[in-house]
Amino acid sequence: MDKISDKVINRLTQYHSILGDCIKKGTTTVTSSYMAALLKVDDSQVRKDVSMLNNTGKSRVGYNAFQLKETIEKTLGFKNPKNALIIGAGNLGSALAKYNDFESYGLNVKALFDVDKNKIGSEINTKPVLDIEKLPEFLKKTNIEIAILTVPADFAQDIADYAVECKIKYIWNFSPTVLSVPIDVEVWNENLMGNFLQFSYKISR
Amino acid sequence: MDKISDKVINRLTQYHSILGDCIKKGTTTVTSSYMAALLKVDDSQVRKDVSMLNNTGKSRVGYNAFQLKETIEKTLGFKNPKNALIIGAGNLGSALAKYNDFESYGLNVKALFDVDKNKIGSEINTKPVLDIEKLPEFLKKTNIEIAILTVPADFAQDIADYAVECKIKYIWNFSPTVLSVPIDVEVWNENLMGNFLQFSYKISR
Repeated sequence: MDKISDKVINRLTQYHSILGDCIKKGTTTVTSSYMAALLKVDDSQVRKDVSMLNNTGKSRVGYNAFQLKETIEKTLGFKNPKNALIIGAGNLGSALAKYNDFESYGLNVKALFDVDKNKIGSEINTKPVLDIEKLPEFLKKTNIEIAILTVPADFAQDIADYAVECKIKYIWNFSPTVLSVPIDVEVWNENLMGNFLQFSYKISR
Repeated sequence: MDKISDKVINRLTQYHSILGDCIKKGTTTVTSSYMAALLKVDDSQVRKDVSMLNNTGKSRVGYNAFQLKETIEKTLGFKNPKNALIIGAGNLGSALAKYNDFESYGLNVKALFDVDKNKIGSEINTKPVLDIEKLPEFLKKTNIEIAILTVPADFAQDIADYAVECKIKYIWNFSPTVLSVPIDVEVWNENLMGNFLQFSYKISR
């Protein structure tokens, strides 16, 4: 398949989200017109986008939701692999390092970094745990785009500053604090508290 | 006040986090532009969000940090605590059990459950790790509303069925799979893959 344009990638991620929601509701077949209506695009646009993918699960009544979702995941994952490292080899960092699904989405965790001498030198899911002091050296050798922060909240800002100094441009922040970073650095906050509160708010009504 | 959207809830929890950090540092007044800059959103967005709340502590120089923090807590119902248990005492389950912030947000994790005999009988952050077979008995004694699922994807459906049998009504699912549950059971999927896809999409541009 040829290069996918940003606009198409944008729509694919939205189809992906809709398919996930449909599957959640127990719907196994989804039509192009259903997705088109939700995204306020033309039906033919959805069909054109999907026809570019190597998707097989199409019947007269619509797309197989599971297959199309998987096709989109594969398409996006294989097209844009990104290297990442995890800072903080505690429980959460270890859990993410063991999350093999990330790779099929194009997120390759190359190493973990920590300050704990007992952890440094070990491996988690075949990924080495390295001394945080070795971060600049490691980044010179390896093309890393994303730092995944799983350190305690009190250390998160210092570690983020350090990562930014080491030329990290994207931070996926799992620490429960809001980071202050330069304008050219992107932070994606994985706000578990916020997610819980959305859930909590929903179920208390 | 009308129903609050997920996006607003998410921002409110981030304002809450910023306010907490400010108070820790001894700052008592916080401006909308300060919070807006940290979250890289527009100033007017912050003012609009806050104006929806029944918040009183606003002066010409900014919001009273204590009052706004408390207003957010009241709005989102942190003061109506909910009891939860974690099923799966692996890395992710342990990380969540150690997440002390949950308690200040009204989520009290009472115990963890696992099948691993090496884990059963231990404690994680003062919370006992119990045999999954003891779940029905435990639920009879303790008022638990939420089961947090952190088991591998392959076991998630069986464990969810079991939790539902044990009268659990709310499941916060961290397993990367879509669960099928009866209509009266609410599942909140913590979709890390989907979150990554959005981030990945954003930074690919």
